[in-house]
Amino acid sequence: MTSLPKIVRSITEPDSALLCKAQKRLDNLTKPQGSLGRLEELARLIVGITEKECPALKNKAIFTMAADHGVAEEKVSAFPQEVTAQMVYNLLNGGAGINVLAHHVGARVIVADVGVASALKSDDPKLIIKKIGPGTKNMAQGPAMTRQEAIRSIETGIAIFEDEYKNGIDIIGTGEMGIANTTSASAITAVFTKNKIEDITGRGTGINDEALKNKIRVIKKALRINKPDPDDPIDVLSKVGGFEIGALAGIILAACAHKVPVVIDGFISGAAALIAYHIEPKTKSYMIASHCSVEIGHKMILSHIGLRPLLDLGLRLGEGTGAALGIFLAEAAVKILTQMATFDNAGVSQKE
Amino acid sequence: MTSLPKIVRSITEPDSALLCKAQKRLDNLTKPQGSLGRLEELARLIVGITEKECPALKNKAIFTMAADHGVAEEKVSAFPQEVTAQMVYNLLNGGAGINVLAHHVGARVIVADVGVASALKSDDPKLIIKKIGPGTKNMAQGPAMTRQEAIRSIETGIAIFEDEYKNGIDIIGTGEMGIANTTSASAITAVFTKNKIEDITGRGTGINDEALKNKIRVIKKALRINKPDPDDPIDVLSKVGGFEIGALAGIILAACAHKVPVVIDGFISGAAALIAYHIEPKTKSYMIASHCSVEIGHKMILSHIGLRPLLDLGLRLGEGTGAALGIFLAEAAVKILTQMATFDNAGVSQKE
Repeated sequence: MTSLPKIVRSITEPDSALLCKAQKRLDNLTKPQGSLGRLEELARLIVGITEKECPALKNKAIFTMAADHGVAEEKVSAFPQEVTAQMVYNLLNGGAGINVLAHHVGARVIVADVGVASALKSDDPKLIIKKIGPGTKNMAQGPAMTRQEAIRSIETGIAIFEDEYKNGIDIIGTGEMGIANTTSASAITAVFTKNKIEDITGRGTGINDEALKNKIRVIKKALRINKPDPDDPIDVLSKVGGFEIGALAGIILAACAHKVPVVIDGFISGAAALIAYHIEPKTKSYMIASHCSVEIGHKMILSHIGLRPLLDLGLRLGEGTGAALGIFLAEAAVKILTQMATFDNAGVSQKE
Repeated sequence: MTSLPKIVRSITEPDSALLCKAQKRLDNLTKPQGSLGRLEELARLIVGITEKECPALKNKAIFTMAADHGVAEEKVSAFPQEVTAQMVYNLLNGGAGINVLAHHVGARVIVADVGVASALKSDDPKLIIKKIGPGTKNMAQGPAMTRQEAIRSIETGIAIFEDEYKNGIDIIGTGEMGIANTTSASAITAVFTKNKIEDITGRGTGINDEALKNKIRVIKKALRINKPDPDDPIDVLSKVGGFEIGALAGIILAACAHKVPVVIDGFISGAAALIAYHIEPKTKSYMIASHCSVEIGHKMILSHIGLRPLLDLGLRLGEGTGAALGIFLAEAAVKILTQMATFDNAGVSQKE
């Protein structure tokens, strides 16, 4: 298993010379210059990241990490905790939203239990079991996990990525499942972006006004009790994070180290991106923000890192669903770059 | 060939009872209610349009109509007129942007010459040749076409749709190619939305400040000379329209009559949608606005009809490129509706 410090050391900035080369090619394709807007931006980005002039996004994988949150006992979610495990079975059986959308874009879904509360009963070889623990502790009572567990959750993500990388990966999406994890994501967002809890906290799976007030109180208490240090992302993860958030941060870091573009899903994935970004800011250059979630804190994450979302479709499901749609756009962009005719070879007159 | 009046008479409102049924199914899928946002809206819409509880969007077609505009002689475009014909060859050879994106989403591209200025030299059976004329007349000097030609351009679109419909069509996208056609689209938009020409007119393929001023002058002159009647969409089409715009209006009307969802591309397709909408307002219920173009007048078209675009990716290429991406989202929406597990059959607990 590659250690966190080793992965971080191997992350470099994407190749800017190749970016210019990609721009030149884009400008010579049979279309007015710049007329494919953000698809052109995506194509350049992916050339820079992959260091390939003609990248192909053949192998696409969405990593959906599942774990439970002790803070669920504070009644911050509309759904009972058992849903995390039930949804893992649903993910394995292909019935979840991400299964449908990943299949639609030709991506495989990698499902891992990195901390579901119950012992999953499944002999499905597709299920990766790498539990850091049986769910985090209740962050409203103390740290969600120890510092060692935080590091282990990140290194577990690195290991999950590297195992899968052997099967071929050209682009990845992040995803998660974990009842109460918008509570954790809101707390992480508050620490790094320094916005007011009230402005960050949303309705997650769909809680009512009273439950929202309670959720805000719980997050405030967790931050007051634990005092996570914004200059120490591992501390933030351990105090108010989650095992799936740590694992996703590890997956993001590993993808960057291996020069693989990372399509970030919604709010929880955004919180993982915040952790990865604060561990190593160069990760930003590898991130593609797929969409802007209905969860109000997500906008703050994106503007904090400096990412502009591709889509705004009112999504708030997680699992990697927005990332799947983002992967489709990334592949569209790369195909434009590599498959369109140039003015010369199509015999089309240039601008006068 | 089905006549325009006959097609218009056969357009009915989509089935609202089926919409409610689709909503019930969506609410019982393993996800928080409403958490797939606009994908859920799209799924409902498509059920209502197709009158199928479990629609499948297997056969996807993008209609890219090509024609020339006499107003090109006023130097309103950055590209020479010959590019229209050259791009038709490029479309047939698979080198244009729409070929790449249509292939990416599994759609076929139907290319028709409905009024290219020159005689195309191609024995490609894929090319449909149904010229209304060798390009329109210069609308800055008089009407772009006669009233008979306007009706014929719409009926040509109806015929092109109905010929292709025999091969199976579940959803369509609109697209076009025609040097100077943003000038025509701007004029049409001005007539129907009554906004100022300056606020509607954009840079098309990328003209400079001086050329933009000239383009605005030309559009003003065309409207002053021709006085298109906003209450008579055929008059508007004949005075300041284009053959490809008329054909697209016909394709939209025919799709509505056959209960096929229509994914509208950018500004020029939007102008065709305006014509279709003013001929029969029920067409609105069949339209899906794929994206919001960089062309500033496009926003006004969408708000005039009452459509909310799915994407905002800085596109301004036309050809149907944005529509292709919209078709992908429509198919994603339908797959969510038809392929996701329900709470019951996945054994997942409901909201508490």
